[in-house]
Amino acid sequence: MEINIQKRILEKNETDADHNRAYFKEKNVFVLNMMSSPGSGKTETLCKTLRALMPEIRVGVIVGDVCTTNDADRLAVTRAKVIQINTDQFGGDCHLAAHLIDASARALGCEDLDLLIVENIGNLVCPAEFDIGEDAKAVVLSVTEGEDKPLKYPLMFQVADIAILNKVDLLPYLDFDAALAVDNMKKVHPGIPVFELSAKTEEGFEPWLEWLRKKVKEKTAR
Amino acid sequence: MEINIQKRILEKNETDADHNRAYFKEKNVFVLNMMSSPGSGKTETLCKTLRALMPEIRVGVIVGDVCTTNDADRLAVTRAKVIQINTDQFGGDCHLAAHLIDASARALGCEDLDLLIVENIGNLVCPAEFDIGEDAKAVVLSVTEGEDKPLKYPLMFQVADIAILNKVDLLPYLDFDAALAVDNMKKVHPGIPVFELSAKTEEGFEPWLEWLRKKVKEKTAR
Repeated sequence: MEINIQKRILEKNETDADHNRAYFKEKNVFVLNMMSSPGSGKTETLCKTLRALMPEIRVGVIVGDVCTTNDADRLAVTRAKVIQINTDQFGGDCHLAAHLIDASARALGCEDLDLLIVENIGNLVCPAEFDIGEDAKAVVLSVTEGEDKPLKYPLMFQVADIAILNKVDLLPYLDFDAALAVDNMKKVHPGIPVFELSAKTEEGFEPWLEWLRKKVKEKTAR
Repeated sequence: MEINIQKRILEKNETDADHNRAYFKEKNVFVLNMMSSPGSGKTETLCKTLRALMPEIRVGVIVGDVCTTNDADRLAVTRAKVIQINTDQFGGDCHLAAHLIDASARALGCEDLDLLIVENIGNLVCPAEFDIGEDAKAVVLSVTEGEDKPLKYPLMFQVADIAILNKVDLLPYLDFDAALAVDNMKKVHPGIPVFELSAKTEEGFEPWLEWLRKKVKEKTAR
């Protein structure tokens, strides 16, 4: 029974996602869905990314959390347009569904944006199943989380277009084999580009920014 | 619609959890449900805990993951009775539902156990909503995850009977305010006991073991 209900929810979500896709196409905005476990450093990565890309690239952010506006507050200093969704009003949802993105993207307004980043709820399972009409999905894994996470949560790494391996500044203090983590990502998603970086120190940041600039350019040039 | 479906699923789960509770009471076994984000160190904490408690306390473990038997393999060296649930057969479920615990607990056999630990799926949202008929819930937070997680994922910290703040050996290398993290836990759950420890170095491990020994004794003495 649960699986059938889940199927129907996902079908409804897919229709909503198609609707979003048409809106994003009309507005000529590149949409990136960023997903990860809680505490992998999505918000810090975003803060540094917005600082590097703006104002050349006009960026908006939709931040999802069950509760609090902490992340939106942290992002406010970047002067990007930011809107926060709190899912506690929607039964404490563990993911951002396409219909929530629809409402938020329209409230934010995408006319004057080149790039819209959705910081999804910290969860390595459920958000992977929910298409939001984005152009690309990114998964962030922190080096503190263990090398085997891509094997344990394969769907997230399969659906992601790129992966970020964050907090590499902590590698000297951990028993973490970064090469093995990257191998495991490529085992579940052959060829996935992986950016090894530290949002804190900005070590390894440039290739990630380059990828993002290129994607935005491709979409907005259409 | 989604919220109503969710309500029905949770009601069905509650009935299944009551069924488990009766079984655990009959078998005189204390059941602990351990929950956390991916990579917070549940398995390492368990390995060290089993080594310290066994054979005086007879422990069994049910390990939940979407995929892989990595955790069960790591726990096998402790010689505890271990059973692995992979939810990818059940639509990649993001939590362990009570009916899965029922089947696994009976397959494992609880007759010769004093303590059954359920290592839930790495997810700080969904497992908090699913009662499995346990005696107590523990949440593990790693110091690498940020101090604000209790505020962002309050339900998990509200339903937990105790919290473990893990990986304190990394504190010298992080901008993490452990006192603030503990304050945030107590803000959403006044009075919650918090064990600050490192599963890796076993620093701060004794109070946690003491709590667990006491709980097992109370239940099995009945």
